[in-house]
Amino acid sequence: MKALIYEGPGRRSWTDVPVPRPAEATDAILRVDAVTICGTDLHILKGDVPAVRPGTILGHEAVGTVTETGAAVTAVKPGDRVLVSCISACGRCRYCRTGAYGQCLGGGGWILGHRINGTQAEYVRVPFADTSTHVLPGGVSDEAALMLADILPTAYEVGVLNGRVRPGDTVVIVGAGPIGLAAITTAQLFTPAHIVVVDLAPARLEAAKRLGADVTVGAGDDPAAAVGDLTGGLGADVAIEAVGVPETFELCTRLVRPGGHVANVGVHGRPATLHLEDLWIRNLTITTGLVDTFSTPDLLEMVAAGRLDPTGFITHRFTLDDMPAAYDAFAGAAATGALKVVLSRS
Amino acid sequence: MKALIYEGPGRRSWTDVPVPRPAEATDAILRVDAVTICGTDLHILKGDVPAVRPGTILGHEAVGTVTETGAAVTAVKPGDRVLVSCISACGRCRYCRTGAYGQCLGGGGWILGHRINGTQAEYVRVPFADTSTHVLPGGVSDEAALMLADILPTAYEVGVLNGRVRPGDTVVIVGAGPIGLAAITTAQLFTPAHIVVVDLAPARLEAAKRLGADVTVGAGDDPAAAVGDLTGGLGADVAIEAVGVPETFELCTRLVRPGGHVANVGVHGRPATLHLEDLWIRNLTITTGLVDTFSTPDLLEMVAAGRLDPTGFITHRFTLDDMPAAYDAFAGAAATGALKVVLSRS
Repeated sequence: MKALIYEGPGRRSWTDVPVPRPAEATDAILRVDAVTICGTDLHILKGDVPAVRPGTILGHEAVGTVTETGAAVTAVKPGDRVLVSCISACGRCRYCRTGAYGQCLGGGGWILGHRINGTQAEYVRVPFADTSTHVLPGGVSDEAALMLADILPTAYEVGVLNGRVRPGDTVVIVGAGPIGLAAITTAQLFTPAHIVVVDLAPARLEAAKRLGADVTVGAGDDPAAAVGDLTGGLGADVAIEAVGVPETFELCTRLVRPGGHVANVGVHGRPATLHLEDLWIRNLTITTGLVDTFSTPDLLEMVAAGRLDPTGFITHRFTLDDMPAAYDAFAGAAATGALKVVLSRS
Repeated sequence: MKALIYEGPGRRSWTDVPVPRPAEATDAILRVDAVTICGTDLHILKGDVPAVRPGTILGHEAVGTVTETGAAVTAVKPGDRVLVSCISACGRCRYCRTGAYGQCLGGGGWILGHRINGTQAEYVRVPFADTSTHVLPGGVSDEAALMLADILPTAYEVGVLNGRVRPGDTVVIVGAGPIGLAAITTAQLFTPAHIVVVDLAPARLEAAKRLGADVTVGAGDDPAAAVGDLTGGLGADVAIEAVGVPETFELCTRLVRPGGHVANVGVHGRPATLHLEDLWIRNLTITTGLVDTFSTPDLLEMVAAGRLDPTGFITHRFTLDDMPAAYDAFAGAAATGALKVVLSRS
């Protein structure tokens, strides 16, 4: 089969490798029907994630059809159409038993396309298949389901739920990439009064408006003034950080009102300064987190019921054979305007 | 009457001043029956709190007897024995209406001994008396009630409740001054499995053990090793910061497990470094806050019912006339071993 291989910093190949077989009794093998590329894959390609060894197949998001299962798998069977979550879960450790699958101590967590071979291939081996896949309801398209492999639950759990967005809130989202846009979509489940989106790229702010932001703040505009105008100078109820640099994190801590919440979603490579000399008295709550994907069944239910349309982030479509072109389009987002790219079995 | 006056950085006096009268219809005047000194008063005396103008009477904790009320006061009457909370509350603003009195926008918040004259005097004017005092149940001593003016609700709300201490948790408390010790007492309301206390002073660690800490970590010991021994290397469920310097805050972020809570109670004068490059993935919740005192009625109820004894922090007793000596004992805590000092009407 063909697979997208990380060959070391700056190098990838779309190469023939053997089709995987179950290695453990809890494994399932899937034929990949639809797959996408994450910003994290680009970080890996830059060499920013040294845990990924050269030779690893990338990708942690897919929709597929089960072709083979290990002896212990009972929740899925060959022929089932399933969503592969970006988080694998042993289902048995103290974290899994409280739904904190992202922190799995039993060999799960974010492993696909990270510590083991991932989904950007014609077939993928999925460990702990019973607790790491979701059988898709009829009427949910591959594309819609695929958006629930990572960006929707990440934005929802780590941004909206951790930030405790409530009806009537003023929510500011800093960063309008796929995660920030998914935060706009999922914040609206709680009917905030205002969604303010901050980004430097006009095209991303256009997408933010299309998806439901009522105020956008671009380069040269003052986010604090925009939030102050909406809140009588008090500040936002919730700030969601969806960039991953110290400056945007610190901006979020300045944009919230006393008693407000800062929900960090961004993946950071450097420390930030926490201005406790101002913040100690302001009843701030700051959260960080990797997605657990405990919300995936709820999100699937909403998609199936027509309450949530997660396909608005998809800008480019390819066949699986076009993997190198899809990477080029996604990596060149500044020129191509790519948000999420979808590769489907032809 | 006599009052303790802040005369500018480094200077205080115990001086004759006029007895206060109601200035607003919502004011009450109290005869002070018992009063204490807070670490914050020492900060003010060092000049660290420039909002306090020279000439201000210090103190934000007292138990007293109502002697006079403004025309609009209905909840207390002359002769009532009341607790004066460190937080005054207008009762009408958006924060007061949600119990967030510490962030009062209507002229309350921490004002006594800060923006207006405080409690370290023979009489005190208390604004917003209906929503800023608590009539004491019979059987609650002045000394016990006095501990509920600040340290108990601060440690309970900003430490234990913000940190979401739960039965079975391992809780680490960094700093064993009066607030840290009050955190030990109030954490036990939730029956944690272990309370680990970190401090440099052996006398404070002795007090911590007496009040319920089961593990203490002193100078030269490794807090991470002590917490790791109790948690299989995972880390504490909750870390409560009760010092107020960057190093202890950063220590707290290292001592909690993935999914843990860091509750900052300390008053900080400098920024800290937040190691988001490690913490973004660890599902951390960090909270800061000034006390709201919404829990004061609950704490009073527990004291009245014999479920909570807050007098174990009191090391020194004086009469009100001995105010200068009490300040000397409290400021010289390293030599005197003072935790909380109580001054009572003779």
